[in-house]
Amino acid sequence: MVNPERFLTDLHELRQFGASGIGKGVVRPAFSDADVAAREWLMERFEAAGLRVQVDPVGSVWGLADGPSLLLGSHSDSQPEGGWLDGALGVIAALEVARAAKESGGPAVSVVSFQDEEGRFGITTGSTIWSGAVPLETADNYTDRDGVRFETARRRMSHLVGDWVDPAQFTGFIEMHIEQGPWLDKAGEAVGVVTDIVGIRDMRITFEGEQNHAGTTPMHLRKDAVQGLIAFGTALNEMLAPVVTPSTVWTIGHVAVHPNASSIVPGKVTFSLQWRDSEAARLGQMETIIRDTAVGISANRGLSVTFGEMLGLEPVKMDGRLRDALSDAAEAYVSGKWRTMPSGALHDATNVARHVPVAMLFVPSINGVSHAFEEDTSEEDLVAGLNVLDGAVRRLTN
Amino acid sequence: MVNPERFLTDLHELRQFGASGIGKGVVRPAFSDADVAAREWLMERFEAAGLRVQVDPVGSVWGLADGPSLLLGSHSDSQPEGGWLDGALGVIAALEVARAAKESGGPAVSVVSFQDEEGRFGITTGSTIWSGAVPLETADNYTDRDGVRFETARRRMSHLVGDWVDPAQFTGFIEMHIEQGPWLDKAGEAVGVVTDIVGIRDMRITFEGEQNHAGTTPMHLRKDAVQGLIAFGTALNEMLAPVVTPSTVWTIGHVAVHPNASSIVPGKVTFSLQWRDSEAARLGQMETIIRDTAVGISANRGLSVTFGEMLGLEPVKMDGRLRDALSDAAEAYVSGKWRTMPSGALHDATNVARHVPVAMLFVPSINGVSHAFEEDTSEEDLVAGLNVLDGAVRRLTN
Repeated sequence: MVNPERFLTDLHELRQFGASGIGKGVVRPAFSDADVAAREWLMERFEAAGLRVQVDPVGSVWGLADGPSLLLGSHSDSQPEGGWLDGALGVIAALEVARAAKESGGPAVSVVSFQDEEGRFGITTGSTIWSGAVPLETADNYTDRDGVRFETARRRMSHLVGDWVDPAQFTGFIEMHIEQGPWLDKAGEAVGVVTDIVGIRDMRITFEGEQNHAGTTPMHLRKDAVQGLIAFGTALNEMLAPVVTPSTVWTIGHVAVHPNASSIVPGKVTFSLQWRDSEAARLGQMETIIRDTAVGISANRGLSVTFGEMLGLEPVKMDGRLRDALSDAAEAYVSGKWRTMPSGALHDATNVARHVPVAMLFVPSINGVSHAFEEDTSEEDLVAGLNVLDGAVRRLTN
Repeated sequence: MVNPERFLTDLHELRQFGASGIGKGVVRPAFSDADVAAREWLMERFEAAGLRVQVDPVGSVWGLADGPSLLLGSHSDSQPEGGWLDGALGVIAALEVARAAKESGGPAVSVVSFQDEEGRFGITTGSTIWSGAVPLETADNYTDRDGVRFETARRRMSHLVGDWVDPAQFTGFIEMHIEQGPWLDKAGEAVGVVTDIVGIRDMRITFEGEQNHAGTTPMHLRKDAVQGLIAFGTALNEMLAPVVTPSTVWTIGHVAVHPNASSIVPGKVTFSLQWRDSEAARLGQMETIIRDTAVGISANRGLSVTFGEMLGLEPVKMDGRLRDALSDAAEAYVSGKWRTMPSGALHDATNVARHVPVAMLFVPSINGVSHAFEEDTSEEDLVAGLNVLDGAVRRLTN
């Protein structure tokens, strides 16, 4: 049987690596000192649970059972300013289920903590490369916002790494995660069984105009990159309105202005545009609108526009058999207090699906907050999620 | 007689301090190593010209003639990415006119290079404090964009500084400067005699919303600070249209987004808004519109808005007697190739006007470019400006 106290104790212990900010905040980005220390701690825990520990070339930490096994897990790296459960919950829940299974001579369960799910370099970088979606040689040229190359960053764990882990040994993958959205919390429900994971596109866009004096350059002669961004953002919202659904999202989350001085007409702005939807076709429609709008706005204003490499992942349907096991377990443990729902967030499960059937389980995020220090979930819901995950594993392996 | 070769040689020599970037670019912000070294070089030059050297408590460098004198000069600090003439031209032209006057037993001419005209800390910081417009104790709390306090930065020159310079000894002030706008260059004219300097307002505005997950937070539940900036920028352009003139300008030149990551709905943005006009009443109207628009936009979007301290300077009329001397000299040296015009740029002369009559002389900026490495002016126009300045000084002191 899973041990809720042991599970919660490990969760709090993992939080100590990079514990920061208000509430239960965590600062543990991929390959930071806190992240590497946390992964070394996980290696000890996996070993103590009787699992064979392996670190793959990109720093994902694996605890392997012998023979064919069901794989559980998530990631233990965090956003630049993250919470204590995003990723960590799925890893520690997996550890507890695998540990309990070992103790009771139960089913073979393996555990993984993928590296850089939060995308310091790419998007779900560790599981993307492991899945074969992007070759390591390509990913090694990814850089973070400070220009650090992935190849350089992953050397930080070179003293730990071994070979790649063969996916053929896994019969399926279940990832437990916080919802990171408002719906379960608003409805007072304990668990969500995921139906599919939305697809994502992420692109850098740069407008270049003419850097000039902010007092002597008449408005009609300016080529102001920030005014270009403002006009683009307004036009894009109008252009997207007719094609999006209530669950479609798009975000300008990163903005870098050059030279970024109040007395200078800005000559250049680079910004991120990320959009998500559960239909690949709509993601494509949106890309066309985004590119056309950027080209149109820049042409009108004497700006040049350049588009960075587009990172992206396709929408993924959850496996029926794994979903049913989660639904049956949810009905058994939290009858009437669970729902099926799509995942608006991207997860490592998207990549793992290239090799084995996958499914996901959500627990509520208080006020729907995540990717922030305030992120949290009640202990009652955390334990409910643990029991549903454990129940699903038993149903699948009996 | 002024010596054009000596004048151009000194200009190029000053450019060596912080020479950078393409063309004749200069990186010499206030209190940087390059700026301090340049000011020490100016001290030697002033002394060699027979002037009494004094550095005031904020780092402005003075070369003083005995008894009552006419003051000429500008500033030798640069923008983060500036040109070789912005400020430097007025200082070296002043040096050459004062030097030539000394040599020929001519009129008493003093010279100044004010500190931080480019506003690393405030706006025309050095001359603002010297003029009494802002007390030193207040200015010491100004910080640059990296959070460095003015009080800390000015310690960099503590080994050089002496007392304040008494303005009572000056009979007037003339500042020669590049136009930093397109008009003289477009018209093929050599010189502009300034009629008045526009007023300026500069304020930081912050929108705060809710930092959240960019995939799981539905658009209708977001409190996105960057979307707030985009909506504000678009609305402001519409609201200002009916009150502005063709020469009114407003600029969002600095933008800082938090946490500035592509997968996070941005919770906070701080940006600069600077606006300029030759009428104080219009500057006030614009401030009301800016504040009302920011409050309205933030209220509609569940954002909070905060306004930073507003820095500003009033529009200033040039002195009639000094203007006439410049116009007569311009007509004598470049007949038919000069005009009278307002200054859209702010200058130290604005502050000096609190103590003595002031006037300004412009030379063309090629393609109107300034506050950029590409800034330049033809040698012919530089020398024409020098001769007109010298001619005006002779007319005023005969």
